[in-house]
Amino acid sequence: MTIAAPGPLSLVPFVSVEHMMEIVLDIGVERLLSELASYIEADFARWELFDKTPRVAAHSAEGVIELMPTSDGETYGFKYVNGHPKNTREGRQTVTAFGMLAKVSDGYPVLLSEMTILTALRTAATSALAAKYLAPAGSRVMAMIGNGAQCEFQAMAFKALCGIDTVRLYDIDPAATRKAAQNLSGSGLTVVPCGSSEEAVLGAQIITTCTADKQFATILTDNLVGAGVHINAIGGDCPGKTELHSDILLRAGIFVEYTPQTRIEGEIQQLPPDHPVTEFWQVVTGRAEGRRDAAEVTVFDSVGFATEDFSALRYVRDQLLRTGKYAQLDLLADPDDPRDLYGMLLRAGLRAAA
Amino acid sequence: MTIAAPGPLSLVPFVSVEHMMEIVLDIGVERLLSELASYIEADFARWELFDKTPRVAAHSAEGVIELMPTSDGETYGFKYVNGHPKNTREGRQTVTAFGMLAKVSDGYPVLLSEMTILTALRTAATSALAAKYLAPAGSRVMAMIGNGAQCEFQAMAFKALCGIDTVRLYDIDPAATRKAAQNLSGSGLTVVPCGSSEEAVLGAQIITTCTADKQFATILTDNLVGAGVHINAIGGDCPGKTELHSDILLRAGIFVEYTPQTRIEGEIQQLPPDHPVTEFWQVVTGRAEGRRDAAEVTVFDSVGFATEDFSALRYVRDQLLRTGKYAQLDLLADPDDPRDLYGMLLRAGLRAAA
Repeated sequence: MTIAAPGPLSLVPFVSVEHMMEIVLDIGVERLLSELASYIEADFARWELFDKTPRVAAHSAEGVIELMPTSDGETYGFKYVNGHPKNTREGRQTVTAFGMLAKVSDGYPVLLSEMTILTALRTAATSALAAKYLAPAGSRVMAMIGNGAQCEFQAMAFKALCGIDTVRLYDIDPAATRKAAQNLSGSGLTVVPCGSSEEAVLGAQIITTCTADKQFATILTDNLVGAGVHINAIGGDCPGKTELHSDILLRAGIFVEYTPQTRIEGEIQQLPPDHPVTEFWQVVTGRAEGRRDAAEVTVFDSVGFATEDFSALRYVRDQLLRTGKYAQLDLLADPDDPRDLYGMLLRAGLRAAA
Repeated sequence: MTIAAPGPLSLVPFVSVEHMMEIVLDIGVERLLSELASYIEADFARWELFDKTPRVAAHSAEGVIELMPTSDGETYGFKYVNGHPKNTREGRQTVTAFGMLAKVSDGYPVLLSEMTILTALRTAATSALAAKYLAPAGSRVMAMIGNGAQCEFQAMAFKALCGIDTVRLYDIDPAATRKAAQNLSGSGLTVVPCGSSEEAVLGAQIITTCTADKQFATILTDNLVGAGVHINAIGGDCPGKTELHSDILLRAGIFVEYTPQTRIEGEIQQLPPDHPVTEFWQVVTGRAEGRRDAAEVTVFDSVGFATEDFSALRYVRDQLLRTGKYAQLDLLADPDDPRDLYGMLLRAGLRAAA
């Protein structure tokens, strides 16, 4: 059956997983992470402009499916994302995602993109951006507890943005550590596989915790955290899932993305609801102090926020022309006369019969 | 740059606008509308099972962008839909939409589909399904006030499901009526273009109002509605947008999809918040009476609900194998080892360099 090619208004640029890999390889991981971080930073700097709708979650016994919408008034974006810890046991990703941008003025989508890889990139870029503001000056060594899918992205972002030259890896599963060490072997980072969390944190100015599938776990106990350390806590990101002992939080400066969401999903769900925290955008805009002194323990209690996905989608959209890595998807109906949707169908039938 | 083909878990069936037209033409409009109505009816019959999240709306001066999620516990679905009345003046659709289904158990999408055409189909199928329960027995003539993009779909659904053989068309823009009359000329329906609403409702047992871009308009005044008429009111579907004079509502039996949403978006936003209405699922399941007698005026105050989109996506999914009209979209990352997302990227780079 032959049907005329879709009209120009019907087409939406689509970035597949393959396209996303090609974009990353074309631009280079470190450069991309740095550029992406500057988009995220720019959006944190205009934080107050964003429509900060809470994410819409559908919980089930096995996981959660979420929609994360936001808008800056000109562009609307949302991410679809699932979280199913048992998926890895079935050969699937714990987290998969896709997202889109649309023009607020006419509601037409302008980008549809895979976001499984992009979410790992934006999470890493956000973590390193926060550390640029919060970690002690001259940080060189990062401990990484949890060596799953996010680990190498985090390592590369901290190399690119913060000047980290050494990562010390630990995972309860040695195979995960071997995987991460091998993937990072040609990266220019010194990679030190460790046999315990205690060993991993030795000499580290930054500690990244990114474990999965834990219920109120204590990945990091108080005695492991020395003065001046910056903790990048990205694994505690839903109700009942935390990684840090509350004693660490009680003596630390705590920085969050969006307080109402982090109170529910972050490490601070362990603390009283009035425990003081600082929103990161306030640090970016100079309205709040970041690290107070060289001895302060700082925690970036990151759960991921819709604006970060928005920044990431903005970045991808801006790479379409630069890289040419996308397809045109016939997603929207574009009849000759917008009121003549049915006629479009009839004419397609006539063409098919001809 | 050559990158290995995506793994099987990365692929999501995608139904484009062209595919959707091919599906409709393959199955036939009337048969498709009847089959679709049976899916919608089946989901109304298990109404209580659904997760009925309110739609998430982002309003702007020019329109609205909405996400409409729902779930039956096994399958999750959502629709992205915009509403921008000024779009038609720029050659764009007032409403465009796309949607997806995912498995609740692992969060993986199983279908991505255009929904601009599909929404017109499901709205028409829902309207005709409601009329099957509510319109007077032996209805043959339908007045259609508003002859825009939805008009012909509605006409064909009422022909297929309710035995309507005559439609009487009126629109303030005669070009819209001409368009609809021409599109319906080979349909088997007797088509009567009319010069006014008064003329259109003559002898009609059913009145469908589907106008757009109106602020508290009165498309239908009380004196035009005789005893026993069924009104299918689909144009009043957001705050500030209504079509019926409230006097009609005050003497009618009113049927809605989901009361909390219709109180805000439907015709009944004109009535006190405790005015009695009946949810349509209760009629389908026999828990509430439909039409009481031949003289009753019934109103289906339809605003569109997420379960109807869910039913429509279920129907499309079930046509994939039957029609073969879809593409495979590389939407999800599928690394050999789910924890090795970064390694997938590295290996793609090695293959590209080889």
